[in-house]
Amino acid sequence: MAVTMHPIGTVRTDGAAPPRHWSVSEETGILDIAPEFARGLRDIQPGQHIVVLFHFHDSPGFTSDALVQTPPHKGVPLGVFSICSPRRPNPIGLSVLEVINVVDTHIHVKGVDMLDGTPILDIKPHITG
Amino acid sequence: MAVTMHPIGTVRTDGAAPPRHWSVSEETGILDIAPEFARGLRDIQPGQHIVVLFHFHDSPGFTSDALVQTPPHKGVPLGVFSICSPRRPNPIGLSVLEVINVVDTHIHVKGVDMLDGTPILDIKPHITG
Repeated sequence: MAVTMHPIGTVRTDGAAPPRHWSVSEETGILDIAPEFARGLRDIQPGQHIVVLFHFHDSPGFTSDALVQTPPHKGVPLGVFSICSPRRPNPIGLSVLEVINVVDTHIHVKGVDMLDGTPILDIKPHITG
Repeated sequence: MAVTMHPIGTVRTDGAAPPRHWSVSEETGILDIAPEFARGLRDIQPGQHIVVLFHFHDSPGFTSDALVQTPPHKGVPLGVFSICSPRRPNPIGLSVLEVINVVDTHIHVKGVDMLDGTPILDIKPHITG
């Protein structure tokens, strides 16, 4: 059964070559959320970390040869479910970003590792257990 | 633009009433992954924590009245993007589970907070930054 998602917004960033991972990124950007979701943003506060789920919209489609991949910074082959590669069966990305400020439906964030124009699927609180 | 996902597997659990959140769950279960993805699981190890993205398949559809919700265990109204409610614009759930064992394409896990039969969309490494 297929599951259909509709983006709630778009990532805006000037970073021409996004860093490989949010955990090492100092890049800033803006999560432009559609105005219809404004009320859902009311408790997102500066200084917090948020989990952002997004669509790897610009990645090549998944094929079985991508079940094992060698990430450039690791140099060893690893199963796709143990790495953050955008080439995965369902192209959902996950970043943990720091909120700098929220202005209307624009969330200014730090730690961006997405491309400019990336569709956003969800924002969740960052819970560390 | 709609984004279409296809489940890679299904959550199996005996828990009749799943705990409210993985961070407080002691429930065990099995992630039954489709055999075609077997090679992608090869580096998932017992003792690790994994991020599991799944479809809230049994939740009511999202409507704008759910932009602010009062979680029962919190008692105050909060924006949907600051809580883990299954009623959200895109019904993607996120759990961080402990791997007990991997047998073929069956990942035995602890911390389950999903319903039996929940479709699994992705598994990612748990990176804490």
